[in-house]
Amino acid sequence: MPGDFKVTPWEVSGEVDYDRLVRDFGTSPIDDEILERFRQYTGDLHFMLRRKIFFSHRDLGWILDRYAAGENFFLYTGRGPSGHTHLGHLIPWMFTKHLQEKFGADLYFQMTDDEKFFHDPVLSQVETLGFSYENALDVIALGFDPAKTFIFSDIEYIKTLYKIAIEVAKHVTYSTAKAVFGFDNSINIGMIFFPALQAAPSFLPSVLKKKNIPCLIPAAIDQDNYWRGIARDVAPKLGFYKPAQIHSKFMPGLGKGGKMSASQPETAIFTTDDPEVAEKKIRNSFTGGRDTIAEQKKFGANPDICPIYHYYEFMLEQDDKKLKTIYEDCKGGRLMCGDDKMHLISKLKPFLKEHQRKREEARKMIDKFMVKD
Amino acid sequence: MPGDFKVTPWEVSGEVDYDRLVRDFGTSPIDDEILERFRQYTGDLHFMLRRKIFFSHRDLGWILDRYAAGENFFLYTGRGPSGHTHLGHLIPWMFTKHLQEKFGADLYFQMTDDEKFFHDPVLSQVETLGFSYENALDVIALGFDPAKTFIFSDIEYIKTLYKIAIEVAKHVTYSTAKAVFGFDNSINIGMIFFPALQAAPSFLPSVLKKKNIPCLIPAAIDQDNYWRGIARDVAPKLGFYKPAQIHSKFMPGLGKGGKMSASQPETAIFTTDDPEVAEKKIRNSFTGGRDTIAEQKKFGANPDICPIYHYYEFMLEQDDKKLKTIYEDCKGGRLMCGDDKMHLISKLKPFLKEHQRKREEARKMIDKFMVKD
Repeated sequence: MPGDFKVTPWEVSGEVDYDRLVRDFGTSPIDDEILERFRQYTGDLHFMLRRKIFFSHRDLGWILDRYAAGENFFLYTGRGPSGHTHLGHLIPWMFTKHLQEKFGADLYFQMTDDEKFFHDPVLSQVETLGFSYENALDVIALGFDPAKTFIFSDIEYIKTLYKIAIEVAKHVTYSTAKAVFGFDNSINIGMIFFPALQAAPSFLPSVLKKKNIPCLIPAAIDQDNYWRGIARDVAPKLGFYKPAQIHSKFMPGLGKGGKMSASQPETAIFTTDDPEVAEKKIRNSFTGGRDTIAEQKKFGANPDICPIYHYYEFMLEQDDKKLKTIYEDCKGGRLMCGDDKMHLISKLKPFLKEHQRKREEARKMIDKFMVKD
Repeated sequence: MPGDFKVTPWEVSGEVDYDRLVRDFGTSPIDDEILERFRQYTGDLHFMLRRKIFFSHRDLGWILDRYAAGENFFLYTGRGPSGHTHLGHLIPWMFTKHLQEKFGADLYFQMTDDEKFFHDPVLSQVETLGFSYENALDVIALGFDPAKTFIFSDIEYIKTLYKIAIEVAKHVTYSTAKAVFGFDNSINIGMIFFPALQAAPSFLPSVLKKKNIPCLIPAAIDQDNYWRGIARDVAPKLGFYKPAQIHSKFMPGLGKGGKMSASQPETAIFTTDDPEVAEKKIRNSFTGGRDTIAEQKKFGANPDICPIYHYYEFMLEQDDKKLKTIYEDCKGGRLMCGDDKMHLISKLKPFLKEHQRKREEARKMIDKFMVKD
């Protein structure tokens, strides 16, 4: 039996039962049929699809139908810039980059600095706007195509976004927002309006280019409410396609259970962490190991609950065979947690160094990516 | 006993008891003491003060204190551009112009096109934005100083306004908005956010000039909620002065009771009405007259309930002696309604023609007045 868990745009806690989310949210699972269709366009499947890190979708078949019929789609994803980027945030962005490459798709990337400002009592506007730029460096560092990638801050791109958001807002009652997001009357009026702004980019290219363009949103599943409850509901009323979605799981934190969270910095590797600091976090990580080496050799360990294993799975070991070996050696008592951590560190540190190098280079390119009005 | 009446930002109906509004809203009446203080700065009192058309205020004494201490205030008023301007709208604007002249004050004039778009199910964004410009022509036609007057559309000036509005919104809960405006859950989320935008200009010059500047809002009293419940409540939390206010009565419509309303076009004179059409509306107007001329000669008529009389009082007869003569002749049975209407028409038509001429000239000047970001 799964324990209690909670998945909302503002909180993910407990051990998430993803099959139950698919049922509860009414999404479709990523199944062999849809993977087979994907393979036709992408060749070898991306490891995040093979491993069902992207596990759920809405209307992905429809997106592929449109694409097959010669109608290009665009990608829309984003980030709530309340702090520095951690590795968990990179997961959907890496996959988004893969989609951009394989389908030649434009990407609209929203920095929801206004929402983070509304949500966090102590975060100032200047701080969250600053994180919009800092987080954008991480996006750019992943290698997106500057000719096809448009990153924008809500606060700085509001003139364009507002015209779309107010069309959305006019069709969303407080009853609906309350039902979708579980608001109570103590919520501030900025948070109530914000769903209209998060819906807006689903229609932005269609407005800019004055034609209806299909939209695919790759994102972690906690953001589903915004598009299920608002964007997809309002789209037909405004004459737009409903945005399709593809949902990822959450990269686990280094603690016991729960997703990687910026609010527990010791359980998350930030892209700005000094590699030595990152190493220390890995060394201190929870694992699925036994209490003693003797026991572990005898009974094996449990990779399924182990963050170290999940770091390989989500990001740092993209070779399925090698991943399988790690899994089996762990389970079979042949791989001890100390060695496992050292091996992960040997992969993580170069990754971090390289990302940080690209991240600094990105500072020079940021004007090519950020759109303002 | 006064009959039932209703005064909200979206509806004014019934015969308004202004004394009761002062008590219910908790404002201060315009009394002799404050008028005496005004006279020190303005010389002869403006007829709208003498006649208590501006009848109520908040913190007007404080504004004059600041002014006496050498601290200039700015003026903020606005318009919901849901249609063409009628004469009733001009009342607070004319008085605002007087204040600009006498106190050398900057004026920030907000066109709340977003609110009108949210509020009216059939009004499109393009239509309301169009009325922002049409209404701005009427403002400019009144002769405001282009060097001191900043007219802006919410939709087009949102980049500047949003940064202030989100600071406000963060401090306003749905409970507060519900209590202040009487929202129920069927209200759209745009309307819920909008009060933050209507509060924003109260602080705009202080933000632009990076110092705290006192604000005086001349407006009809139906808009009081926005500033009492939102702007004045939030101001100290953001480190700004509370905006002061001076409230006008509503110019009556040409029908029996109620304010001049664009939703009953036959009861309102629009600034864009052909003077012949305006004449016809006056001819068809309700009056305070008797059923027959004989009766009227014998018993006199009732100017207090007569729109024709109120047109003189609010706008077209600024000479108190002449106004008194009209009042007394009407009451004394010496002035018949037909003659009264003809006399009003002889004042209204030149006023309208002149306003329309200036309104057309304003088209050339509009860029000097409209600010965008």
